[in-house]
Amino acid sequence: MSNFGFLRLRVVNAWEVAYAEARSAVNASAVLAQSQQYATVADAVADCSLVVGTTSIGHRVLEHPIRRLEYAGPALREALTVDRVALLFGSEKFGLSNEDMSYCHWLVRIPTREEHESMNLGQAVAVCLYEIIRREEAEHHEPLRIKSAESGDVERVATLFLDALRLSGYINKLTAESTEQKVRRLVNRLAMTEHDAVVLQGMVRQILWKLRQEADSPSVGM
Amino acid sequence: MSNFGFLRLRVVNAWEVAYAEARSAVNASAVLAQSQQYATVADAVADCSLVVGTTSIGHRVLEHPIRRLEYAGPALREALTVDRVALLFGSEKFGLSNEDMSYCHWLVRIPTREEHESMNLGQAVAVCLYEIIRREEAEHHEPLRIKSAESGDVERVATLFLDALRLSGYINKLTAESTEQKVRRLVNRLAMTEHDAVVLQGMVRQILWKLRQEADSPSVGM
Repeated sequence: MSNFGFLRLRVVNAWEVAYAEARSAVNASAVLAQSQQYATVADAVADCSLVVGTTSIGHRVLEHPIRRLEYAGPALREALTVDRVALLFGSEKFGLSNEDMSYCHWLVRIPTREEHESMNLGQAVAVCLYEIIRREEAEHHEPLRIKSAESGDVERVATLFLDALRLSGYINKLTAESTEQKVRRLVNRLAMTEHDAVVLQGMVRQILWKLRQEADSPSVGM
Repeated sequence: MSNFGFLRLRVVNAWEVAYAEARSAVNASAVLAQSQQYATVADAVADCSLVVGTTSIGHRVLEHPIRRLEYAGPALREALTVDRVALLFGSEKFGLSNEDMSYCHWLVRIPTREEHESMNLGQAVAVCLYEIIRREEAEHHEPLRIKSAESGDVERVATLFLDALRLSGYINKLTAESTEQKVRRLVNRLAMTEHDAVVLQGMVRQILWKLRQEADSPSVGM
């Protein structure tokens, strides 16, 4: 809840001892410490204009309209801009009862697979809240953290690399042209960043320097 | 993992005792029981064509391209159709190290709020996997579970309700027309299902029957 900015937790019919202990624990999260306790679902949702229950479905016949989480998200998001909305979760073991559900306007289902429908409560809450805060258009507000290398930079890497390949005897005179094209295509496929291109140029330059030094001096240690 | 159909768990450098115990527990999930252990990240991802790390960012300067989860989902989904993909999570306490991240092609970030960036591991896994299996177009494959009432059915409820209001003296002769319109608008706003409309008709018919009976017989108990 806290990760996604949902700060109002209401607990219905909590097991008094465990709840009191958890709330007053030194490391209790702000959400838990500030949570409120209610005796009934009716009391807990009394001031909410929209009450949405959660279910893993299963064999029960549901009397409620049910939405997959993907479609519940926008509806919940919209309702939250004008009204107080309750998202109701059942206990880890039994989920929501039919009585609990009768306070709901509709239900939401996380699209788990049939063979394993029922989710861990904390994970179910995280997934539902993520869907609510999820932003389709967020990309445009996200600064690009990594800039792709420009073609000129990539070409400089390719040129240096080809020099190194020539000096090391990798390139055969007869097939030089097709080999050069192959190398250039390969280097372009690498999808390097601007920074990668600079680093690679430095690395290949150093290798070239060493290759040229070897070529100029008499061989040693052979 | 099991909820969303991800069945291959690889554990790197696990704490031997806890891991062995958890795997062999009577109620161990199939995913955990069939999980595989590796000594290093390099070994664990060796047969994967795409390795994506997870991070809550923070103060560290990241050397990797980073995508918000909303945008990582489609990329991961697409890669999964052709290749083996690894989604790499760090330990609950420390997350991924720089060394771990150096095996990743890029990183994904769950859009948690700045004041509380770091997530519980199990919840982070659930949210990431949900994003991967999330289907924008799923609505069309989802059978409509609840059929809305047709206008004719709603109108029958409105008519019966108006009869009851007339019999009970709610409707004033002078303002009858506007009141009737007000009631009809109200009943139409109720967004009742096909089944609701049938049940409501039965209820109001019963009330009408009682009202008529009262009207026909001399008052008692007054």
